[in-house]
Amino acid sequence: MSNPSESFLVGLIGEGVTPSLSPPMHEHAADRLGLRYLYRPVDLSVLGQGEGIEAALKSLLHGGRDLGFNAFNITHPCKQLVLRCLDEVSDDAARLGAVNTVLIRDGKFIGHNTDFSGFASALATGLPDAVLDRVVQLGVGGAGSAVAYALLKAGTKHLTLIDVEYSRAAERAEALGRLFPGQTVAAADSADLPAVLVEADGFMHATPVGMHSHPGLPLDPELLSPRQWVADVVYRPLETELVRAARARGCAVLDGGNMAVGQAVDAFELITGIRPDPDLMRADFLDLIERGL
Amino acid sequence: MSNPSESFLVGLIGEGVTPSLSPPMHEHAADRLGLRYLYRPVDLSVLGQGEGIEAALKSLLHGGRDLGFNAFNITHPCKQLVLRCLDEVSDDAARLGAVNTVLIRDGKFIGHNTDFSGFASALATGLPDAVLDRVVQLGVGGAGSAVAYALLKAGTKHLTLIDVEYSRAAERAEALGRLFPGQTVAAADSADLPAVLVEADGFMHATPVGMHSHPGLPLDPELLSPRQWVADVVYRPLETELVRAARARGCAVLDGGNMAVGQAVDAFELITGIRPDPDLMRADFLDLIERGL
Repeated sequence: MSNPSESFLVGLIGEGVTPSLSPPMHEHAADRLGLRYLYRPVDLSVLGQGEGIEAALKSLLHGGRDLGFNAFNITHPCKQLVLRCLDEVSDDAARLGAVNTVLIRDGKFIGHNTDFSGFASALATGLPDAVLDRVVQLGVGGAGSAVAYALLKAGTKHLTLIDVEYSRAAERAEALGRLFPGQTVAAADSADLPAVLVEADGFMHATPVGMHSHPGLPLDPELLSPRQWVADVVYRPLETELVRAARARGCAVLDGGNMAVGQAVDAFELITGIRPDPDLMRADFLDLIERGL
Repeated sequence: MSNPSESFLVGLIGEGVTPSLSPPMHEHAADRLGLRYLYRPVDLSVLGQGEGIEAALKSLLHGGRDLGFNAFNITHPCKQLVLRCLDEVSDDAARLGAVNTVLIRDGKFIGHNTDFSGFASALATGLPDAVLDRVVQLGVGGAGSAVAYALLKAGTKHLTLIDVEYSRAAERAEALGRLFPGQTVAAADSADLPAVLVEADGFMHATPVGMHSHPGLPLDPELLSPRQWVADVVYRPLETELVRAARARGCAVLDGGNMAVGQAVDAFELITGIRPDPDLMRADFLDLIERGL
């Protein structure tokens, strides 16, 4: 970090990443710190992978190492696959079984997960008074696994997982239960959502419902009580139908932008060694969203 | 060029390029223009090439294309090899048989040579009054081939090539003679240097003699007349023994920095579409040299 000419070259590998906000968020954060920083989306759906996704991923990582990349962010569908390409993995990323940030240090690939840590920070600062004891979570895909892990690390005593596919929720509940043996992680059927939600302190939403491409509400907002908090992972739009309805019900709300910014803040810090100002990064994120980028 | 978030990612592929001045020169020129620009040296002697240099070069170019590089500069020992990796080549680079700049456009590799064009510009602005009719040139390696080509393009009517290896000079003279049929390109033996130099308007030096690692003079400065101009390709140090001796003899002198800056100016323009200010680039280059970078 002491070399004045040091600069940072970062990529984002995944499918459909061309319109990602991570490149401008990282670059603008670096500009505010006076760091030379370039962040390239590397879109697997544009490249094509005749050789298969894992081989393509490995070849991009090795190419990046040889060409002077400092790090990569990794997203769908590579967060699990990338584990097979690494030399080291942080404890949390290994436990979670997913990596979204790969640092390249001395030619070695080191995996981290800032999805969970970014959400954890966002939760702590965005909903500082939230009671986390009993939480009901809808959706256990990639983002869902990360936020469930973050909630359990933050002290949730009873986490109920619900998914359209009950078996996925049950598998995830069992896996997380093993990682956090003193806490309870249960799966419930979608039909039981109203019943389990009654007893919850908060509702964690982690399905695509509410995205521009999947408009709608993931549950009947009448089920929410003003004493409950609601967190969403969807951030396009930032104001999902769920966020709007929960606010109208009087709930404390954490929109999906908080997690999106949180993971970028943590990734930027891992890459540069400097923690960017989360408020400025959030303001920039809102500005980018507003400009339709 | 109209995308406001456009940025430029460039690499330099070659052996021993880690201390190259091209990265800071390009990056500083971009900073003055407000462009986001990152330039990485990719040192083949650090990477190792178990697969052979040509395979390593090809794999770096393809990796760079997939990872969002806009261009590469290419240097020793790849300037000829790279011709086999390209989709298109500029006329001059094809005639010269050497490429030092590869643009990546729509997934295609397009080769250019800014060694010759940069030297040509440097010669035109640095020695505007030089008579170019008869020139004696010492050294016909990579840099030598480029400057010989530039001299002939600039109108030199009689170019005499001399090399420690006479056969190399003869081969190069024959090849250049074919490219410029109305002009004379001859090879001469080293021992004949004093005789041919007497009749020359200028002396072009293109061997490594005078570099920090090869100190010394490439010829007896007594052979130089004040009416002759002298150009050097060596720029580390900028003030070579030849440059100093030629100045002392009263010759007009073009130091090696002019070619080094000229090729960078032209490469930067090809990559960005914007011509940087050569004087500012030269000032930056002198500053970098002075700081021992």
